[in-house]
Amino acid sequence: MGHGSEKRAGAARMSGLATDLYQLTMAAAYHASRRNERASFELFIRKLPDERSYLIVAGLEQALDYLVDLNFREDEIEYVRSLPVFKSVGEEFFDYLRKFRFSGEVWAIPEGTIVFAGEPLLRVTAPLIEAQMVETFLLATINFQTLIATKAARIVEAARGRGIIEFGARRCHSFGAAIYAARAAFIGGCIGTSNVEAGRMFGIPVYGTAAHSFTMAFDREIDAFRAYYNLFPESTTLLLDTYDTIIGAHLATEFGPQLRAVRLDSGDLVELSKQVRAILDGAGMGETKILASGDLNEFKIAEMLERGAQIDLFGVGTELSTSRDAPALGGVYKLVEVEYADRLEPKMKLSRDKATYPYRKQVWRESANDGTFEEDIIAIVAEVIERGEPLLMPVMRDGEVIGSMPGLGEMQDYARQQLAHLPVQFKKNENAAAYPVHYSSELERKRVELLKEFECGK
Amino acid sequence: MGHGSEKRAGAARMSGLATDLYQLTMAAAYHASRRNERASFELFIRKLPDERSYLIVAGLEQALDYLVDLNFREDEIEYVRSLPVFKSVGEEFFDYLRKFRFSGEVWAIPEGTIVFAGEPLLRVTAPLIEAQMVETFLLATINFQTLIATKAARIVEAARGRGIIEFGARRCHSFGAAIYAARAAFIGGCIGTSNVEAGRMFGIPVYGTAAHSFTMAFDREIDAFRAYYNLFPESTTLLLDTYDTIIGAHLATEFGPQLRAVRLDSGDLVELSKQVRAILDGAGMGETKILASGDLNEFKIAEMLERGAQIDLFGVGTELSTSRDAPALGGVYKLVEVEYADRLEPKMKLSRDKATYPYRKQVWRESANDGTFEEDIIAIVAEVIERGEPLLMPVMRDGEVIGSMPGLGEMQDYARQQLAHLPVQFKKNENAAAYPVHYSSELERKRVELLKEFECGK
Repeated sequence: MGHGSEKRAGAARMSGLATDLYQLTMAAAYHASRRNERASFELFIRKLPDERSYLIVAGLEQALDYLVDLNFREDEIEYVRSLPVFKSVGEEFFDYLRKFRFSGEVWAIPEGTIVFAGEPLLRVTAPLIEAQMVETFLLATINFQTLIATKAARIVEAARGRGIIEFGARRCHSFGAAIYAARAAFIGGCIGTSNVEAGRMFGIPVYGTAAHSFTMAFDREIDAFRAYYNLFPESTTLLLDTYDTIIGAHLATEFGPQLRAVRLDSGDLVELSKQVRAILDGAGMGETKILASGDLNEFKIAEMLERGAQIDLFGVGTELSTSRDAPALGGVYKLVEVEYADRLEPKMKLSRDKATYPYRKQVWRESANDGTFEEDIIAIVAEVIERGEPLLMPVMRDGEVIGSMPGLGEMQDYARQQLAHLPVQFKKNENAAAYPVHYSSELERKRVELLKEFECGK
Repeated sequence: MGHGSEKRAGAARMSGLATDLYQLTMAAAYHASRRNERASFELFIRKLPDERSYLIVAGLEQALDYLVDLNFREDEIEYVRSLPVFKSVGEEFFDYLRKFRFSGEVWAIPEGTIVFAGEPLLRVTAPLIEAQMVETFLLATINFQTLIATKAARIVEAARGRGIIEFGARRCHSFGAAIYAARAAFIGGCIGTSNVEAGRMFGIPVYGTAAHSFTMAFDREIDAFRAYYNLFPESTTLLLDTYDTIIGAHLATEFGPQLRAVRLDSGDLVELSKQVRAILDGAGMGETKILASGDLNEFKIAEMLERGAQIDLFGVGTELSTSRDAPALGGVYKLVEVEYADRLEPKMKLSRDKATYPYRKQVWRESANDGTFEEDIIAIVAEVIERGEPLLMPVMRDGEVIGSMPGLGEMQDYARQQLAHLPVQFKKNENAAAYPVHYSSELERKRVELLKEFECGK
C-alpha cells in the first residue's frame, strides 16, 4: 500500500483546471507583473466544528500525488484562453502554463496524527504562482479526508473494540468522494469498507452482506439464504429483517455454527440483538457474529452498548461517510512569508475575525514521560521548543516526494497510538475539554511588532 | 452542453468496481442460481430532511453516462477474483463480468423537476444482476446532485433576483465532488461557479475575484489592485478587506466606473456594503457591483437583504456546496417487480419503518389551469390519472440513451419554471407546508391485498 503502488493502481490524472478561477487570474497577474518570488503558504483549520475536540489529519498522499502530476493539457489551456476574462492576457502566460510543473517544497504533519485548530498541517514553499495555484485542490483534499478520519475515530471509540465497517458510498457526495471517504475512515480506525473500488485502489479490506432485494427476488426467504450460503459458505452474512427479524433468525439456524454472521438493519436493534443472540446460541452458533446497521453514529452506538446490545460489528454509512453532524471543515491556506531579492518578509492578514499569524511555523507537541500529550506550541521555524517533538516533516523537495509514504495500515496503527496518548477529557464524544494549544511567546511578540509596523505604515 | 459533448469533454471512465461488495456477491449468487429474470427497481428519497420541503432532481446525465460506459476491465476482474470471499466462485461468473454491459431500460424524472419524498425519480428495468449492480453508483450520483441543486434553489430564492455564484470547491468532499456540486448548483439557479474544471466540462460560466494573499504579496494594497486591474480591465473584482474594507474601497475609486466589482469578505457585510456603496457612488461608480462572501447561506442572505444590504452578488461556498445543514439525502433503490417466466410479480419489503410500495409506478402531477402545482399522485404504471401530467419519462432503452439530453441552461430554465409553479407555502425556507403527495387508491388497495397474501403464506 505504499505511495508508488497506490498511484499506479489509483486515480486518473486530475485536470490542471482542478482549481478556482481566481488562482488562474492571479497567476496571470503575477506573471504579467514579473512577480514569482518564493512564497510560503500554510494550510490550517481555523476553528474546530463545535462537535469536535480534535482532528485526525488525512489526505496527504492524494495531495502529494496531485502536486507530482500537476500540469496543463493543451485542451485545458485552450479553454482558459477562450474565457472572456483572459482576452488581454498574452501568449507568454499560456506558454508558462504549457511548461508548468510544481517545483516546490512541502512540509506536512503525517496522516493519522491528532491535530487541533490553528496548527499548520501542511506548508508549501514554492515560486508564488505555483504555491498559489494549488490551494483549491489541497484544501478540498485535506479538509475532506481529515473530516472523515476524525468522524471514524469518534465512532470507533464509541464501539469499544467492536469493528466498524464503512458502508456509506451511496450517500457520499458522488462516488469519487466515496473512494476517499473509505480511505480516510480506514485511517481513522474502521476495519474495512463496502466500497470495492476503494478496496482495489488502497488495499482496504472489503466487507459485504446482502440486500433486502436479494431476499425479495426469491419466492421464500430460506431459498435466498441457501443460494447465498451455498456459494459463500465461509463468508456469508445473512440479512434477517426483510420480513421479520426473529423468523429470519430461526431460518438462519439451518446453517449451523459455520455461518459467519447475521445482520440486523431495522427495528429496535438492542432488543432484537439480544433475542437473535439467544436463538443463535440455542442452536450452538455462539461463534456466529451479529452485525447491525441503519443510520448509526457514535452516540447511538454508545447508547446501544450501554443498553447491553449483543452486537459484534457495526456497519456505518451516511453519518460516517458524510460526517453528517459536521459535514465541513474550515480549512484555509494562507500566505505567511515571501522571499524578496533582498529580504525574507513575514506576511499576515488583518481582516476582522480572519487575521492570521505570520512566518513559517512548526508545531511542537509536549508529552509526559509516558507519552501522554500535554500541550502543543506553534512556533516560528527558527525556534526550538525544548521537550517538544516537532510534528511537521519534510515530505517533498523540488517537486519530488521525499522517501516513501507509510502504508495505510501503518497510518491506522499510528492514529490508534495517537488516540491512546490523548487524555480522555480531550477525546470524549460530548463535552470534551479544549486541548491546550499556544503560540510561542516569540511568535506573539513578533506578530505584535508587525502589527505596529503596519499601523505606522498606514 | 448536450449529452454527447459533455461526455467527450468530461469525466474519465468510472471503474466497474464503483459499487458495494454485496452487489458483486449477490451478482455471483444470482448467476450461480441461474437467476436473471428482468426486474424493476425504483430510486426514491424515503423522507425529506427536516429542513427541506421540496427537492430539485439532478444527476441523471451522470447516471446515464455511467450505465452506458459500465464494464469490467481485466485488472478489476482480477481483483475481485483475488478476494477470499470469491474463492468458491467459478470462472463462469468472471466470464460473465468480462462480457458485462448494461442492457436495460430506464425511466426518469428530468433534471430540474421539483419532486417530493416517496416519488420514484428513476426506474431501472433490466436482467436482475444488471439492475442490482448499478444501485450504489446511481444512488451516490442522484442523492448528491439532488441535494446540491435543492440547496442552491433555496439560496437563489433568498437572494430575490441577485446572482449567486458557487464558491465551495475547497470545502467539498474531494475535488471530484466539487465538479458535480458546481453542475447541480447551476441547475438549481446559480449563475456560475469558481470551479474552472466544472466550467470546462459543462460549459458553466466561471467567476473569480482575487485572494487576500494576492494583496499581501505586494508591498502596498494599491499595487496589488493596479496589477490586477491592468491585466483584466473589464473583469476585475477587487477584494477590499485584506487590511481595512473602507480604506480598500477608497483605493478602488482610482479605477473609476469601468471597475466591474468589489468584494467584501469579512466584518458586518450589511453596514460595510452601505458604506462602500456610498463611497463608490460618490466617485461616480454607480455601475460597479458589490459582491459579498463569507460563510453565507439562505438565512443570512435573507436577513442581510432585510436589513438593506447593498449587495448585488453573493459568492456562496461551504453551506451550498456541502448542503451543510442537511448534508445527505436518504435515497434508496428498491426492488418493485420481477418478471418470472410465467408471471409478473410485484415485490415489497416489510421491514419495520422501511416498508416499500410494490409495482412499477408513475408519478402524476395535477396542476391548476394557470400551471400551479396542486397535488402529486403515485400510481401503478398501468393506471392513468385524469388531469395529471406524468413525470417519469423513458430515457434509456436496451442500454442506449433515447434522444439527446437537454443542455444545462435548459435544465436551469426548467427548474426556475418549476419553482414558479410551486405555491409559496410549499417553498418557504422555514416552516414550509408539506406538499400533498398521495398513492392512488388502486395502489393502496393492491398493496393491502399483497400484505394479506403474505400474512396467509407465512
